[in-house]
Amino acid sequence: MSKVRAWGAHKAKDKFVPFEYEAGELGDEEVEIAVEYCGLCHSDLSILNNDWGYSVYPLVAGHEIIGRVVALGRDAKGLSIGQRVGVGWNAESCLHCRQCLSGNQNMCPEVKATIVGHYGGFAERVRAQWDWVIPIPEALDKSAAGPLLCGGITVFTPFYVFDVQPTQRVGIVGIGGLGHMAVKFAEAWGCDVTAFSSSPAKFEEAKSFGANHVVSSRDSDAIRAMANSLDLILVTVNVGLDWQAFIGALAPRGRLHFVGAVAEPVPVAVPALINAQKSISASPSGSPVATIDMLDFAARHHILPQVEHYKMSQINEAFDRLKSGKAQYRIVLEADFA
Amino acid sequence: MSKVRAWGAHKAKDKFVPFEYEAGELGDEEVEIAVEYCGLCHSDLSILNNDWGYSVYPLVAGHEIIGRVVALGRDAKGLSIGQRVGVGWNAESCLHCRQCLSGNQNMCPEVKATIVGHYGGFAERVRAQWDWVIPIPEALDKSAAGPLLCGGITVFTPFYVFDVQPTQRVGIVGIGGLGHMAVKFAEAWGCDVTAFSSSPAKFEEAKSFGANHVVSSRDSDAIRAMANSLDLILVTVNVGLDWQAFIGALAPRGRLHFVGAVAEPVPVAVPALINAQKSISASPSGSPVATIDMLDFAARHHILPQVEHYKMSQINEAFDRLKSGKAQYRIVLEADFA
Repeated sequence: MSKVRAWGAHKAKDKFVPFEYEAGELGDEEVEIAVEYCGLCHSDLSILNNDWGYSVYPLVAGHEIIGRVVALGRDAKGLSIGQRVGVGWNAESCLHCRQCLSGNQNMCPEVKATIVGHYGGFAERVRAQWDWVIPIPEALDKSAAGPLLCGGITVFTPFYVFDVQPTQRVGIVGIGGLGHMAVKFAEAWGCDVTAFSSSPAKFEEAKSFGANHVVSSRDSDAIRAMANSLDLILVTVNVGLDWQAFIGALAPRGRLHFVGAVAEPVPVAVPALINAQKSISASPSGSPVATIDMLDFAARHHILPQVEHYKMSQINEAFDRLKSGKAQYRIVLEADFA
Repeated sequence: MSKVRAWGAHKAKDKFVPFEYEAGELGDEEVEIAVEYCGLCHSDLSILNNDWGYSVYPLVAGHEIIGRVVALGRDAKGLSIGQRVGVGWNAESCLHCRQCLSGNQNMCPEVKATIVGHYGGFAERVRAQWDWVIPIPEALDKSAAGPLLCGGITVFTPFYVFDVQPTQRVGIVGIGGLGHMAVKFAEAWGCDVTAFSSSPAKFEEAKSFGANHVVSSRDSDAIRAMANSLDLILVTVNVGLDWQAFIGALAPRGRLHFVGAVAEPVPVAVPALINAQKSISASPSGSPVATIDMLDFAARHHILPQVEHYKMSQINEAFDRLKSGKAQYRIVLEADFA
């Protein structure tokens, strides 16, 4: 019963192959979930490729998990067998540090990612600590909800933690897997939304997601023309852009916020921040309570990612599709273990 | 009556010489103040030297003004003749833009500095728009309160606008004119205060101002040893330091905040911010209401800068003292026009 069938990669950049592992005894704080669907996130690819240098192999990727509770550890709280739940980027935290105790479990120094030194969701079953197992509202389509658990909460969190007001003007930079969800959240949040994309082909689609305005993210003149207008600029891309122009586009007390781990340092000119009290910041994923509130908000506002579906047995094809950059906009794999 | 005697500099880096100007008719929104004391701030020197490229000559510097109201424009509100008042970095704003209307007058796009295209406080009289003329609590020593109007409000504002909690841990970088006031405010705010100074000679004095801990601002190892501990790091210096180490010393959700216009860009590594949702920001001076609250707080907590006094006729000597970097810690000039 504790053998788990999964799709595993044995080293960096490998193909995924059928892989079985022995899950062992269920931990006291753990929950076991039968996987129904699992989203494919760009960070699955980064971990597969060991881009960040801390991957562990064999790797079972997949951290946008939707499934049903099949077993509860002795101390697992607030969940019941058969309940539909989700798991995102994190699977465990210490429960007792000041970050955990204050509801910022995603910043626990001991937080454990679902796919780093832990087997993830491209599998028939997966485990996670109970507080990271999030009930999924029935109103959300289970076949498309997975990406909300990582990409969704990542772009939702800045609205949630920085007290963004519905009267404010928000820019979303990059209309891809993260960005298209960010536009939907920003629109439902009540904000005036400007989408920034390098791809004119996405301009109309960005409007269909809820953007009020669309601007080329490579057009420094157009960005400079927006001087002092945006309260929040949410950057969902990993590439370098004209950050000085974007800082100029911030309204007084505005914030340039990164959720993509832009590798190249952003040169911050303090004089560009100081006169209008501007901030630059970044954040990871989100906390369990933020995720619960995000899912409720998404259900109420009918927010789901736009997804392409594959069977889990097509995992390598799905990764190729992700690498092509052409996925519109997230990929979800349906578990099909015989 | 509208001739004003002052100390003026006719070009960049000049000495100050006796200078008279015709003030003209008092504007409807203006207040005229008989100057009693005026602090000497490092930005007076920057404007004298045209370091920021927007100085206007002849220059009458001085923007930490204490005096008494001697005339009120027809539309000047909330003040009375004879009242003791102060004026800081700003002397005028538009009153009607969204920043002015929302209490962030210091971010008004039309905000006018007291000493740029406007004659400042090293003079027998000075004018400012009524909302920038701040009543001074009687309990504050008028001969030392001047520096609160610019340096004081500049370091107080981050506590005020970012909802710093008294339970938090705060670092003050640079124990000079601004920093020594910042330590006093942080201590009175109830925080655990770490002073960072490059000068071991100031370590004991920083403790006398209220610092609980003192660390060398040049000791990267010591700063790195404070990893994830400080909720706010307030930078009052203009020089380059090991900003990566300071970012590392921020607690989750912490903020590295600049009030000194560090000229060299700060290279921000997004990955260093992202896991613990850290921010980098900067702010100028403060709003009228923040200044009122700061002065009330200072009076209640007996916070005054440590000052050296000169007569206004010793203005050039006072500037030499400022340039020497040896002033302990702010300089105030007493008006002595015969």
